[in-house]
Amino acid sequence: MIRIFVTGGTFDKEYNELTGSLFFKDTHLPEMLRLGRSRVEVAIETLMMIDSLEMTAADRARIVGECGRAAEARILVTHGTDTIVDTAAALAAAASVAGKTIVLTGAMIPYAFGSSDGLFNLGSALSFVQALPAGVYVAMNGRCFDWDRVRKNRGSGTFEDI
Amino acid sequence: MIRIFVTGGTFDKEYNELTGSLFFKDTHLPEMLRLGRSRVEVAIETLMMIDSLEMTAADRARIVGECGRAAEARILVTHGTDTIVDTAAALAAAASVAGKTIVLTGAMIPYAFGSSDGLFNLGSALSFVQALPAGVYVAMNGRCFDWDRVRKNRGSGTFEDI
Amino acid sequence: MIRIFVTGGTFDKEYNELTGSLFFKDTHLPEMLRLGRSRVEVAIETLMMIDSLEMTAADRARIVGECGRAAEARILVTHGTDTIVDTAAALAAAASVAGKTIVLTGAMIPYAFGSSDGLFNLGSALSFVQALPAGVYVAMNGRCFDWDRVRKNRGSGTFEDI
Amino acid sequence: MIRIFVTGGTFDKEYNELTGSLFFKDTHLPEMLRLGRSRVEVAIETLMMIDSLEMTAADRARIVGECGRAAEARILVTHGTDTIVDTAAALAAAASVAGKTIVLTGAMIPYAFGSSDGLFNLGSALSFVQALPAGVYVAMNGRCFDWDRVRKNRGSGTFEDI
Repeated sequence: MIRIFVTGGTFDKEYNELTGSLFFKDTHLPEMLRLGRSRVEVAIETLMMIDSLEMTAADRARIVGECGRAAEARILVTHGTDTIVDTAAALAAAASVAGKTIVLTGAMIPYAFGSSDGLFNLGSALSFVQALPAGVYVAMNGRCFDWDRVRKNRGSGTFEDI
Repeated sequence: MIRIFVTGGTFDKEYNELTGSLFFKDTHLPEMLRLGRSRVEVAIETLMMIDSLEMTAADRARIVGECGRAAEARILVTHGTDTIVDTAAALAAAASVAGKTIVLTGAMIPYAFGSSDGLFNLGSALSFVQALPAGVYVAMNGRCFDWDRVRKNRGSGTFEDI
Repeated sequence: MIRIFVTGGTFDKEYNELTGSLFFKDTHLPEMLRLGRSRVEVAIETLMMIDSLEMTAADRARIVGECGRAAEARILVTHGTDTIVDTAAALAAAASVAGKTIVLTGAMIPYAFGSSDGLFNLGSALSFVQALPAGVYVAMNGRCFDWDRVRKNRGSGTFEDI
Repeated sequence: MIRIFVTGGTFDKEYNELTGSLFFKDTHLPEMLRLGRSRVEVAIETLMMIDSLEMTAADRARIVGECGRAAEARILVTHGTDTIVDTAAALAAAASVAGKTIVLTGAMIPYAFGSSDGLFNLGSALSFVQALPAGVYVAMNGRCFDWDRVRKNRGSGTFEDI
């Protein structure tokens, strides 16, 4: 069983046709897993629905706490890409999650857009979280990075080794 | 560097609007990797473009031969789902590929359809092939099966343990 | 109030992922009108769900009969493109539909495919049927043809004047 | 020959994956007409690419001027929905466009989103502009309104008679 914690991010942004702006409603994760015909046993829980630029230390502490309390040893976290590395670092620093495999992933384009990378990233992260040993990782661009060896390149919009 | 061998299958079927039937033209793999913003180094080669129900022993021998000759130790094969397990078995029986990690994947719905599972499966297979030890595997439904412990359930259209 | 008669055709073809073939299930018309945020008052009725190459004289007589019996003076018929002109001719020959505006339309690519022309054609046909005087027309490629001045060019897949 | 003037609006908004915000790049009109397999002869010209809430009197005067100077008697204008009725009124008040058929249309959801009404609206507007007599109209929701008998209902996001 894989635990999936949803925290928002571009993944789940939608277009509000009355205001012309982007907003969060419900997570698209269940629909995306259906589309991928996933048969992986998962338990999905939405912790928050926020842009990761607005994520506070308290939000981050809550994610760490939930990952620590979760019964599952393998956890997938969906997250905005702007501060995904910060949350990965917070998780790696917590003794409560030691021994677990935690993979964070996000998207550059909302799933609701035709051209989203979200479905690819979800397939990727869900696979890495099943296959990798204990540790905290960021899965983006088809790759999986150790939490302390990755950064987002804001110019190219991709993740790279450091 | 990951080697990707394309053999056809539902993944790459397209709709011929002049005849109203499904056919193969070019592979969608490069476009799919672009959509997923993949930064994994890959070399894509199309070996054949066929429905896996029409795959002959000679076709299968060719796939095995190419996997053996490839310089890469990690290989992804796109394949029709109907006989994907047979090709996996042929690969596992070949001494020439021992020591390599080979992941076969396919799709239930053509990528050209809006509702395809292809992008999810590609993200999944590309991740498993990077993370798993040497062996021959089938990646479908978000899961990864050892070649000799999987079958396609034709009633449900999903892959399951045996 | 516009009457919409559904007869099948490429518009409504779907992909059967268990058999890998195209088939008819339910019409996509209501979903398409929702997507287009249509506020035109319509009554949708499915008369048959067939490929127009398989349409018999009896099927065609049924369409003519239903158009004649309909209370509405403006009728949209969705139809396979291969024999859409034949059905238009059958309608034009029927005294029972004289005085009505009847527009037939179809699609070259199933709506369920990402690259379908269906939504464009539906918007077009629904507009022509509101704006044009009594007569029988074929709406395809953004144009509207009198029933006796059009043919499908099977080489290009487009409709043209004769 | 139909003249199409592009002025921006939701139709052509795209998602900037580096900033996470919506912006204008190039118009999607040519791609949309290709998808609809349109064979209507059109000449497309981009006058501006702006949100209609930011449209000034000078912008509106420019649209009126271009419609007056255009050699074509049938003109389609793509426009943001928030002030589309204002531009329609400006056109109707101009002696220079008398005798022309001018249809304005827009979209509630950007074309680049999977769930856009744009393709439906374009098919609809392109059909009305071919079929209707001289006048200024707003085509939305599958309907066509006289310029002085329509308003946008901001609560429902639809256009209605006044």
